[in-house]
Amino acid sequence: MNTLLKITSKENGNIKEISNLQKSSKFRKEQGVFVLEGVRLCEDALDNGFEPVKVFFSTSATEKYNYLLNKFLSYDIFEISDSLFNKISDTVSPQGVLCVFKIPELSNDSIKKSGKYIALENLQDPSNLGAISRTAEAFGIDGLILCGCCDPYSSKSLRASMGALLRIPLYFTDDMFELFEKYNVKSFASVVTSDAESISNMDFGEGCAVIIGNEGNGISEITKEKSDYLFTIPMSGKAESLNAAVAASIIIWEMCKC
Amino acid sequence: MNTLLKITSKENGNIKEISNLQKSSKFRKEQGVFVLEGVRLCEDALDNGFEPVKVFFSTSATEKYNYLLNKFLSYDIFEISDSLFNKISDTVSPQGVLCVFKIPELSNDSIKKSGKYIALENLQDPSNLGAISRTAEAFGIDGLILCGCCDPYSSKSLRASMGALLRIPLYFTDDMFELFEKYNVKSFASVVTSDAESISNMDFGEGCAVIIGNEGNGISEITKEKSDYLFTIPMSGKAESLNAAVAASIIIWEMCKC
Repeated sequence: MNTLLKITSKENGNIKEISNLQKSSKFRKEQGVFVLEGVRLCEDALDNGFEPVKVFFSTSATEKYNYLLNKFLSYDIFEISDSLFNKISDTVSPQGVLCVFKIPELSNDSIKKSGKYIALENLQDPSNLGAISRTAEAFGIDGLILCGCCDPYSSKSLRASMGALLRIPLYFTDDMFELFEKYNVKSFASVVTSDAESISNMDFGEGCAVIIGNEGNGISEITKEKSDYLFTIPMSGKAESLNAAVAASIIIWEMCKC
Repeated sequence: MNTLLKITSKENGNIKEISNLQKSSKFRKEQGVFVLEGVRLCEDALDNGFEPVKVFFSTSATEKYNYLLNKFLSYDIFEISDSLFNKISDTVSPQGVLCVFKIPELSNDSIKKSGKYIALENLQDPSNLGAISRTAEAFGIDGLILCGCCDPYSSKSLRASMGALLRIPLYFTDDMFELFEKYNVKSFASVVTSDAESISNMDFGEGCAVIIGNEGNGISEITKEKSDYLFTIPMSGKAESLNAAVAASIIIWEMCKC
């Protein structure tokens, strides 16, 4: 086994880099990497083909999770004292395992003409993004198309997704309709206007993308105009609109139910 | 206008009582009251017939939310310095309005034979309880039946519900089947076993209660045995089970869709 590289000072460059990566979505994009913490998530990422750049174990974790340490042996592994690890962790009960992984580059060319996609426009809450990815994975959605959304590689998004954001294909675009046209995918915009057609009357079929909008403002006017179909989830009760993750659950269910 | 009663010390009995009410579900039950914080929630509760026991405004809130202060004038109102208010608040950005309300006593006799109910067995996460109540209200569910669940009057539950827990009827019971029998309500248990009937084949109709179980363990064996019907939400994807609030969204949609 390689000797572990020891870090004892919080002034160490690696420690500062982790902190910057945790804080800044811009820095993550510039560096092309993200931070993942926790035994289950780090193992999941490795098993799903994510490429580790640096691996950090707390001193106690080197013993407690030795099986996982062994899986990372061909990469640079740093050992950090437990107290220093607790400082860099952004979880309440740190397990002592943290990795920096490369952000995968997925070509939009893997979008399938017969696929079913959820397109998210300006979704801003990482908990919603995580929850939606989890439901999408459970029902076999072929990928998420992200346009102006919060960062799926933030720790909040990743944790809320229970790792689903590491497993479901993510496509980034500034113009979702360019993609829809290129891959011949029909677009369905989910709106809250009561005169729109009910989701129960929609035939999503194959080759479809359902667009869900921003938590506060819904779908933009231009997106409504460009979409092939508008639909709504009719509600008989009192609330004005559904939480985005709840609306997404019902939409994904209607797209995929068997 | 009445003179406001001023509180300046954190040793004041009222301040200690608020802290105990915030912390302890047992203390809330013993006293028959709960704490609600925030302009929107406190106004909602008052408008929905909840009875205030004590009302607390921070000094700045007495000016900023004077219209709300006026709505509470027939009750005891305490003015607390802004710094002391910040200490008793359990929100990140306190608005300076906090009330102690009586927990309403709702007789199970208001359960309707033709109603649609969600019965929650041992649900433990206040965020899930809040989210489920919000979806239930949106689709016109007639009430939540709570059996061994976390406290709907905790601040976490109430905030996650956006006030829905103050508006939707809540029924508490140790034996949900006694209620189902008495009010002639059919019971449907939501399970994760793949050999159960699909939710798509269920005819919930009128006079039904759908049971959703604990986040980790699902529905208890005895409840499965006693239920009139078992059903599952079939999933084509990879995740093993859905988050309880997501499962509830799909169930409520299927019960109420129009």
